[in-house]
Amino acid sequence: MMAMSSQGAFLHTPEFEHNLNNLAAVAIGAGLGLAPGQELVMTATLDALSLVRRITEQAYKVGASLVTTLFTDEASTLLRYRHGTEATFDAASGWLYEGMAQAYKNGAARLAITGNDPSLLSKEDPAKVSRVNRATSKAYRPALELITRHDINWTIVACATPAWAKAMFPDLAADDALAKLWQGIFAASRTNVADPVAAWKEHDAKLHARAEWLNNKRYYALHFKGPGTDLRVGMADDHLWLGGGTTAHNGLYCIPNMPTEEVFSTPHKDRVDGTVTSTKPLSHMGTLIEGICVRFEGGRIVDAKATRGGEVLQKMIETDEGARRLGEVALVPHSSPIASSGLLFLNTLFDENAACHIALGQAYSTCVKDGNSLTPEQLAARGANTSLIHVDWMIGSNKIDVDGISASGASEPVMRAGEWV
Amino acid sequence: MMAMSSQGAFLHTPEFEHNLNNLAAVAIGAGLGLAPGQELVMTATLDALSLVRRITEQAYKVGASLVTTLFTDEASTLLRYRHGTEATFDAASGWLYEGMAQAYKNGAARLAITGNDPSLLSKEDPAKVSRVNRATSKAYRPALELITRHDINWTIVACATPAWAKAMFPDLAADDALAKLWQGIFAASRTNVADPVAAWKEHDAKLHARAEWLNNKRYYALHFKGPGTDLRVGMADDHLWLGGGTTAHNGLYCIPNMPTEEVFSTPHKDRVDGTVTSTKPLSHMGTLIEGICVRFEGGRIVDAKATRGGEVLQKMIETDEGARRLGEVALVPHSSPIASSGLLFLNTLFDENAACHIALGQAYSTCVKDGNSLTPEQLAARGANTSLIHVDWMIGSNKIDVDGISASGASEPVMRAGEWV
Repeated sequence: MMAMSSQGAFLHTPEFEHNLNNLAAVAIGAGLGLAPGQELVMTATLDALSLVRRITEQAYKVGASLVTTLFTDEASTLLRYRHGTEATFDAASGWLYEGMAQAYKNGAARLAITGNDPSLLSKEDPAKVSRVNRATSKAYRPALELITRHDINWTIVACATPAWAKAMFPDLAADDALAKLWQGIFAASRTNVADPVAAWKEHDAKLHARAEWLNNKRYYALHFKGPGTDLRVGMADDHLWLGGGTTAHNGLYCIPNMPTEEVFSTPHKDRVDGTVTSTKPLSHMGTLIEGICVRFEGGRIVDAKATRGGEVLQKMIETDEGARRLGEVALVPHSSPIASSGLLFLNTLFDENAACHIALGQAYSTCVKDGNSLTPEQLAARGANTSLIHVDWMIGSNKIDVDGISASGASEPVMRAGEWV
Repeated sequence: MMAMSSQGAFLHTPEFEHNLNNLAAVAIGAGLGLAPGQELVMTATLDALSLVRRITEQAYKVGASLVTTLFTDEASTLLRYRHGTEATFDAASGWLYEGMAQAYKNGAARLAITGNDPSLLSKEDPAKVSRVNRATSKAYRPALELITRHDINWTIVACATPAWAKAMFPDLAADDALAKLWQGIFAASRTNVADPVAAWKEHDAKLHARAEWLNNKRYYALHFKGPGTDLRVGMADDHLWLGGGTTAHNGLYCIPNMPTEEVFSTPHKDRVDGTVTSTKPLSHMGTLIEGICVRFEGGRIVDAKATRGGEVLQKMIETDEGARRLGEVALVPHSSPIASSGLLFLNTLFDENAACHIALGQAYSTCVKDGNSLTPEQLAARGANTSLIHVDWMIGSNKIDVDGISASGASEPVMRAGEWV
């Protein structure tokens, strides 16, 4: 008789089913805030099918008019790189992104399930990966703008997949790795508590209070200090700190990331100076970039290197002028549940919520006062950056101090050793 | 030791792999005629993944600029019926069909993989099924018109799936049923010959010769006689018989159905009279309709019944005024390879190519001389029907005789006992 002692056995327990159903319930109920009669557009890899079906069921139960899932097959993506001729690397399915934008304009909500293989494209030519990313970003832009402007309610949730689990736990058996990743997702997504939707409301209130505290401070700049990091990040004029949920312009309240532990705002694109070193690997479009070290002058990256994936980093910041400037700065205490788990998820949705981070590229106009009613020129005048990309990477740890600097130049501690003071 | 004597073992043979690769090769090379640099939009159920990947690889190898597959999950479709509120049954993802239409206008080719569960919706409320079909047909119409007008190159191929195989062979083990269905598909799709693309070219030439013979005859009407059938089908003025491949308006040659054994044309929507009985079950949008018996007067169905699925048939012909008139008539000899196999595929792509058939609903404008440059009014004046639906059903067998009737009223035999005279 075989003993069922492996971690993988968790996948066949009622507890697993219970958590998976709770994840679908909080995704629709707390994350997306789907309204009765609203259409839902979902994206997922094929490996996320089990969660897709739970969320689809949950959406119909609360009255969705229609649920359409656009699946991507990672193996088909690889076939493009392996067998495609030159023409393919600058192509994008613009018609599909335009269709999605139309759906949002018609009132649809948007749910993305993340669960990609973090190393899918690591063996592909970085020049080709960059060309594909650029073409895709350009085609996706009109649809993405409706999302980043919060015209509609949207959210991102995670589904454990075999390739993702293997990348995180290469030494475990496939089922054990998958079970361990699911447990990490459930804990971070607050599905393993008595009342998950209530837990999310309580957590959301705390993030709002933290953002309000920072908004009252009105810091002119933040100063990050730690091993390999001495960075002064000027804040955009009229910047706003946000965190947790938001009411979209369609009137529906959503929490756009599940999990979320961050408060974030818009830095000034021309007022970032100094050196910063990443504290966690960045999984960017199927490539791992590690040991990023970057120097800014007047907001612009003047020197960039990485111990791994440097070529992809280089291509990324060459996407356009805005790709070498900051579009976001975010503060996360080192005691957040995700950081406490000690897991490196190799997925931005999780890792950015385990540590303070910055993002190269496009700024969120919602993080500038009245940002959505300003023209692109007015936003730029306040310091908000523009780019085809928006790539978050982690600079926080328990060795990082953050000071807030007022307009007068006075400095006060905001975080010490990775924790709020 | 376990003997590998089951039919299912075929699925693990090099012969199976060889045929599957050949199917992908003829789909792209002979069926679709994909041009280097052309984009490809593919649709498939999730169960067709293995064929999707072969075709994707083949498409990239011949130079596709981009392959995008839109997958449908039949389990998610069922969730809509099981848990959806009233609002869902009149909803359709118009934005997605509009996006597809845009892709075709931009030059994309279209490949559909069929392999659906023939009984998926058989337990659902026929009224709801009909509402969904109506909403979907309406939303799909602009994209479908680009296809039926042959503005672009397109084709349909088949992939064996577990649910389809089970419906065909309910008494076999799952793997045996799947293997048997695959063998039927390979034989009908001419993939098990030395040079499949050459075999398709030869077959295509034969279908063209047969269509030309009928075009030279210029019959005013066809008369079908057999058990339960005595039907006179008037032909549209300036009707054209087509069969096999065609050069689309984008200049690319394609064979739109794989398999195809039929020659087909446009009947006159007001000149169909008599009674006709189906000779094979019709699998329509997840419901099996059997023993259809219909009486026409002046082109219009005045009485319709079926021994099974009658309610779905009734809803179908109530879709709109054109749904109770004919849009297509097709001749197929009873000795066609599909009929010879003796298999009932429960899938129109196969079963319509095993027997003479008629279609209710929309006519193909390509089956009228200069049809694509005529206005809708001009097409209607020639007798071409208009509808949201186009549903083929089988009326041929080895007991059916077909006479051709000239404008003067003279009659001559065209088929006897299901074979060309």
